[in-house]
Amino acid sequence: MGRNEPEAVAAAQTSSLRIDGPRLWRSLMDLAQIGATAKGGVRRLALTDLDREGRDRVADWCRDAGLAVRIDRVGNVFARRAGRDPSRAAVAAGSHVDTQPSGGRFDGAFGVLAALEVMRTLNDHGVETAAPLEVAIWTNEEGTRFTPVMMGSGAWAGVYTVDHIHAQRDLDGHSVGDELARIGYAGDAPMGGTAGAAGFDAYFEAHIEQGPVLEAKGLPIGVVAGALGQKWYDVLIDGMDAHAGPTPMELRRDAVLAAARVIEAVNRIALTEAPHGRGTVGFLQAKPNSRNVIPGFAQLSVDFRHPTAEGLLRMDRALAADCAEIATRGSVRIDVRPLVAFAPCVFDADCVGLVRAAAQRLGLPHMDIVSGAGHDAVHVAGVCPAAMIFVPCKDGISHNEIEDALPLHVTAGGNVLLHAMLARAR
Amino acid sequence: MGRNEPEAVAAAQTSSLRIDGPRLWRSLMDLAQIGATAKGGVRRLALTDLDREGRDRVADWCRDAGLAVRIDRVGNVFARRAGRDPSRAAVAAGSHVDTQPSGGRFDGAFGVLAALEVMRTLNDHGVETAAPLEVAIWTNEEGTRFTPVMMGSGAWAGVYTVDHIHAQRDLDGHSVGDELARIGYAGDAPMGGTAGAAGFDAYFEAHIEQGPVLEAKGLPIGVVAGALGQKWYDVLIDGMDAHAGPTPMELRRDAVLAAARVIEAVNRIALTEAPHGRGTVGFLQAKPNSRNVIPGFAQLSVDFRHPTAEGLLRMDRALAADCAEIATRGSVRIDVRPLVAFAPCVFDADCVGLVRAAAQRLGLPHMDIVSGAGHDAVHVAGVCPAAMIFVPCKDGISHNEIEDALPLHVTAGGNVLLHAMLARAR
Repeated sequence: MGRNEPEAVAAAQTSSLRIDGPRLWRSLMDLAQIGATAKGGVRRLALTDLDREGRDRVADWCRDAGLAVRIDRVGNVFARRAGRDPSRAAVAAGSHVDTQPSGGRFDGAFGVLAALEVMRTLNDHGVETAAPLEVAIWTNEEGTRFTPVMMGSGAWAGVYTVDHIHAQRDLDGHSVGDELARIGYAGDAPMGGTAGAAGFDAYFEAHIEQGPVLEAKGLPIGVVAGALGQKWYDVLIDGMDAHAGPTPMELRRDAVLAAARVIEAVNRIALTEAPHGRGTVGFLQAKPNSRNVIPGFAQLSVDFRHPTAEGLLRMDRALAADCAEIATRGSVRIDVRPLVAFAPCVFDADCVGLVRAAAQRLGLPHMDIVSGAGHDAVHVAGVCPAAMIFVPCKDGISHNEIEDALPLHVTAGGNVLLHAMLARAR
Repeated sequence: MGRNEPEAVAAAQTSSLRIDGPRLWRSLMDLAQIGATAKGGVRRLALTDLDREGRDRVADWCRDAGLAVRIDRVGNVFARRAGRDPSRAAVAAGSHVDTQPSGGRFDGAFGVLAALEVMRTLNDHGVETAAPLEVAIWTNEEGTRFTPVMMGSGAWAGVYTVDHIHAQRDLDGHSVGDELARIGYAGDAPMGGTAGAAGFDAYFEAHIEQGPVLEAKGLPIGVVAGALGQKWYDVLIDGMDAHAGPTPMELRRDAVLAAARVIEAVNRIALTEAPHGRGTVGFLQAKPNSRNVIPGFAQLSVDFRHPTAEGLLRMDRALAADCAEIATRGSVRIDVRPLVAFAPCVFDADCVGLVRAAAQRLGLPHMDIVSGAGHDAVHVAGVCPAAMIFVPCKDGISHNEIEDALPLHVTAGGNVLLHAMLARAR
């Protein structure tokens, strides 16, 4: 027998390893009780009491699995399973536990609990890896209560400074720094992505697709090759409040009418960039918002997505041109404020290859896919090799209380994660 | 000398009477301090603490002028100046003291304080009238916090039952009945418009035009011949919440995009009914209102106005047809709920004639005009003779903190009110 004999034996032992699917499903359902909504969804906004409860629950499960938990300065949580070679950087996997205001049970939670299930499975079978493994829970991925989105992974990767993140405030004036301290997640671990030693060797993130493609094609696994770039804006419209009755149509400076035209323009611009261009107005507010007053102010958000930087630039220019025309036509002032931008992302070929190979070895039908959503993995990919695993969700619906996924697909995704991590950590 | 001699002497004495313009202006500015906003406007929503403070202030002024104050079951306030003939019904004048969320200093307050100034002027000169006179303060004219608008005058005129009004609730769940009791304005006077003896002989209401016509023509007085009819709706749009990134444009059920199309349709329908058709979306709300979620729900208000019942019906049918088309096109459900309607109003010819004659005698340039706004006088006109007096407001702007009027015009309106009331009450 040659030098590789122990490794060959280990490989034979581990190639038949499978996660405990029902246990992973139970953990998902347990976590979904925290902030559960009447319609079967979850409302667990970042850095609220419910977010703390969700974090505490998962951190307790990690400690129960023998993992060493640490928290960094923006509240990211890392739970480490030691490897044979302490000099090696960790092979990590995770996602987030915060949700949208009317969110579902799988977005974020699946990636975190699949990573935990990998650890539990390795414990059950007494499998040791060469590199250490880590579960990562990133702070405020959703960006609903505090901007920017993907806050924790962005700070970890050095895209934002810690001070900048701590100073962000919600609509009630509460800061991230204060809220982290209040819920007990203002840690002192170093920001790993910016310092080699505390960083990762590689990062994998399992996630529901949040779109309709895998379901339509009947495939349990998406091998995620990259993500659409994004450009977000606030659009502020100033007109003139006036009484709805006596003010003739031609003398109005109606901010809501102008807002309606901006919404139509956003839709038109995205359709021009078919099939991968996306344009959404998700947030909308009028003032004074009284039924018999012509509104003098309106504010709305714009979210553009595109697979190329050139496409995003075309969308940006079209929005500016359309808003200028709408402002002139409606005698209002329109201020288009760029908020955040994420360049289109291409994941590490080796990591993507490990995901694809795992699906193949497990006999799971799969396809390469581009993510329409941003994910923590996109920030992490800026400083270390990363890849993602998608599983289908019902009707492609996410960011909705009725978000759903099949136990079969959740288990398949967990097994692909297990084998991609094992291959990397060997 | 004949039988009419004493009356002829009295007429000669009163024809030279003029109100105290600076005193009326000071009262307007004093009342505007209650709920004053940083931009020079007023925010004094119906049945709030500030509304109570405003009512208390005016009621105190009425008592100081020797008037007998009573409050009816929906909080309308009436302040009576006795006449020589107690068997005659009162000649009344008034308006309201509640304001829009970002309202001005004149809308409502002018009509109430001009009526008070008429009483003060008659007191100063020891003038007695045959019929009693009354100042009326109607509850919740604006309809912002509680629907319906023109609530107090509508209940007084028997358009709404007292129980129905008491049961109305604001967005926080507070009822009109509870709020009336809380601020001390749940009275027990009978609902006069529904019972002859406690009703009026006639009602006059002075008001800023809230539109640009008088200012454009350089005229201080508008003799109001009637008011545009109104039809109000709530439009509820049900689509499907979904993630803004991975959901292709063609698979969306975007409630905000449909709302934008309804807003454009409302504008188009009103322009089709030029020059007097009006269409406004003043209230607009999206859910979940998160920037990276395609909104699954939107709600908006529609306010249509037209000088004829046929015109309102055309607008109603066009809205239904457009919403059906928008719903099909956007794969959403649109529910168009009629809320309240006011038929176009034609004021009493005798009362309108008294207003016109007063302007003529005072040498004030004037024109006949139709009100674009609803006013308490429209409800009152349903049960007794009524008319209105308009004065110009700056740039035609109302329901806005910068609403403004010239002391010269306020005084002119007060003098027309004085002489129209004197002519009727003789």
